[in-house]
Parts: sequence; structure tokens; C-alpha cells
Amino acid sequence: MTIDVFFSPAVVDETSVEGKTAVVIDVIRATSTLVEALANGAKAIFPTLSTEEAVKLASSLGREDTLLCGERKGLKVEGFDLGNSPAEFTAEVVGGKQLVMTTTNGTRAFAAVEAADRVLAASFLNLSAVVEALEGGGDLVIVCSGRENRFSLDDALCAGLLLQRLGVDGDGDVVMNDAARVAADLASNYTVSADFLGSTAAGKNLLGIGLESDLELCASLDRHSLVPEMRERRISVPPQEGLDT
Amino acid sequence: MTIDVFFSPAVVDETSVEGKTAVVIDVIRATSTLVEALANGAKAIFPTLSTEEAVKLASSLGREDTLLCGERKGLKVEGFDLGNSPAEFTAEVVGGKQLVMTTTNGTRAFAAVEAADRVLAASFLNLSAVVEALEGGGDLVIVCSGRENRFSLDDALCAGLLLQRLGVDGDGDVVMNDAARVAADLASNYTVSADFLGSTAAGKNLLGIGLESDLELCASLDRHSLVPEMRERRISVPPQEGLDT
Repeated sequence: MTIDVFFSPAVVDETSVEGKTAVVIDVIRATSTLVEALANGAKAIFPTLSTEEAVKLASSLGREDTLLCGERKGLKVEGFDLGNSPAEFTAEVVGGKQLVMTTTNGTRAFAAVEAADRVLAASFLNLSAVVEALEGGGDLVIVCSGRENRFSLDDALCAGLLLQRLGVDGDGDVVMNDAARVAADLASNYTVSADFLGSTAAGKNLLGIGLESDLELCASLDRHSLVPEMRERRISVPPQEGLDT
Repeated sequence: MTIDVFFSPAVVDETSVEGKTAVVIDVIRATSTLVEALANGAKAIFPTLSTEEAVKLASSLGREDTLLCGERKGLKVEGFDLGNSPAEFTAEVVGGKQLVMTTTNGTRAFAAVEAADRVLAASFLNLSAVVEALEGGGDLVIVCSGRENRFSLDDALCAGLLLQRLGVDGDGDVVMNDAARVAADLASNYTVSADFLGSTAAGKNLLGIGLESDLELCASLDRHSLVPEMRERRISVPPQEGLDT
């Protein structure tokens, strides 16, 4: 079994993910937000790379049941219904809706792993559920969304906690790439908290634009027990797994 | 003072390095090899991105005093004088010569930092000398050459040891980016040795092509006390610093 971690979607190619399960992580904030949205009754999320593509897709899906969501430079795109703060995605707002979502980093990561056999979304909010979904599985690729293709500590720690909870440490039959070894080490060096997130580059950026309340929510370990899965560019909770409340 | 580490040259842009000192690291093997070559009396090294550019430059410099060096997929380029194994660069072979050198990852990193105020080359072979050259300096950027733009543990540990020896830990007045924080942590988790290098992706690749003897040399901490510096795409030891023996 192999476990590869990539600290940036830019270095992921088709051969890196083909035949494997891919887990996409964007702690601050895309995967945290989509877990929150699905937990609050959103039917599905469609990630798009550009705002133009988002507008077009929302229009073709039918605007009455679809919300346009996403950010540029951390802030809600002008004219969109929602930004990328998980707290915006309440049951009242997103229940029964489809969401079209474009974010700076997270949607790139989903695009990078489209060739994988299976694509799951992880954040601190649903970490244990993802671990459970992966147990006994085959080759694994974890893609950290990073920031503008650069290393992001919040995503790397989430990857590391995932590895720690999967019980892999580089010994035995599991072959880990260099980045996976380092991510696994991080789990012993840091503790998940709003303060920790606020010390990372992505967290400092949120503090700078007045969105510090997002940090507490993004640091909420195992707040939900669902595992979002992407099929045909549509992210939802597969029926057999049900929704938590 | 800011210290930024980049795990790949692909994410370094001009604004990342302008006005700063940049340190390029390619433990396996470009910066190890060029330190060894300069210690053995090579006059200068000219890094080039392509083999074609290397051949052209060597020809314009005059082939009698110039050696063509470099690798593709780890092995010597056909028709070149030398590959990229530091042990090839003995005083008998490189003394008094200019070297034109093209490698898969290291030369990309030098190209990425051309806009910096000052560009130094570091490896385990000259780590203390680089630390001494940096003491009391201003903003610092450390660029790990990586492997095909991906994270490389050998380079990251070298960056981390550099930070550890500089005495920076993220507290106090030094502002470190996320990657610098992680690199600094690595210094406590790993020890430099041929075995360690053999456990990394780059090291495994060398083992696979029968170049395991390079690992011992690349792990030789402080074997030399010189600091290569790049000026106008020419890497040499500035006269005031002299050559060690």
C-alpha cells in the first residue's frame, strides 16, 4: 500500500491518482465549508475553477434551487449568494439547495484529482468519519490545497492527523512519500485549535479581513460524521451513508 | 526580519526574493556537487536549464578550460565530461576549470532566485559556513530544489538545520512562513546520515541507479567551509572568502 501526500495541487498529475483514493483537504476553508453545508442539508456542491464558470453552471442548474458561493482574496464574490465562511451555510440558507462553489485553492485541488477512483473531502470537521471510510482501503493520495500552490500548515496538519488516526507511521507495509512522512510528524508537533489556525498563513489572512470567527469553526474536530464524495464533479454524501444532524 | 522557506522553485516569484538573500539547497545532489567542485579548485560553475544551453555556453566559454557537467534522470548526459556525482569532481579533474552544469532540479532553483540581492548555495557539506555568512543578515529566503517541483525531505531537513543553527524558532522578531516553521521542526526529528538520505525519495532514486556512494558524501556535514555565491549566473567563491582545502 502506498500513501502519498502532496502539499500543492499543482504537482498532482493523472498518474499520481489513477486507480487510487484521493482525499482533498482545504481546512481554511473550502472543505470545512462544504462539510458544514452538507451537514446542514445542502444536496450537493459543484466546485468550479472560475467565477464565470460558476455563474454559467448555476444558471444551467436553475437558479431557484441553486446558490452561488465562493470567494476571491477570502471575500465573497460580488453578486454571489454566499462567500466561503462555513457559518454562512446554515440549514435555513442551504437546506435542500445545490451549491455552485468557486474558491481560490480548494476547487483547484478537486480539479487535480478528477482521475482518481474515488475522491473524498476532509477537514478537521469530519476527520474521524474520513478515517473510518478509508480503513482497509488501497493506495491513498492526500492533496493539500495549499495557498496559491504553496505549502499551507493547516492543511498539512490535517493530512498528518489523518495519517496518525489511520495508524500509519512509515514502518511496515505502507510506503509513504517524503511529504507523507513529514505530515505524519506534524501530528505530534501541533494541536488543533483556533489559535493554531490563527498562526498559519491562511489563518492570518482571515484575521486580516475580519473573519476570525471562521477559525473556531474550522478547528472543530469531528463536529460532523459525514464524508463528502465527488462523482462527476458533483460533491455530495452518498445515499448509503446518510446525513448526520 | 522574515524567513521564508519554499519547498519547490516553481512557487518562487520575483517578489518573493527581491531585496533579500536567497539560499538554494539541492542536497541530492547539485549544491553538494558544486561545493565539492569549488573546494577542489574549480574556478566557477555556470548553471543552465537545458543541455542545449549548456553545450552552447561551454562552446562560447572555450572548451579547453571548460567542463560540461550534468544529469538527466540522475545519470550523466551523453557526451558530457562529468555527471552530477560529487565524487567525480576531484582536484585532478576540476582544478582551474570552469564548469557548465545542468541538473534536473538544482538549476531550476538558481534560475528562480535570480532577482534576489544575494544568492548563496547550501548543502550539508558547507552548512556551518553558510550559517556564518548569514548571521546578522536581513530577510532570508531558502529555496529547496525538490524533485520535479515536489517536496523533498533531504532539502527540507537541510533548510531546517540551517534555521536551527541560525537560532530562529519562530518566536521573537523573526516572522517565518508556514514552510519555514515545518522545516525548523524537522531538525529535531531527523539526523543527517547516508541512511537518512537513502530513505528519501531522491536517495532511493540514487540507490536504484547504483549511485549509493554519493549518499555518504552528500551527508558529510561541514566537510568544507566555503560559501558559493551566484553573481550574474556565475557561481563561485568570492575572492575575500578564499578557498578551503
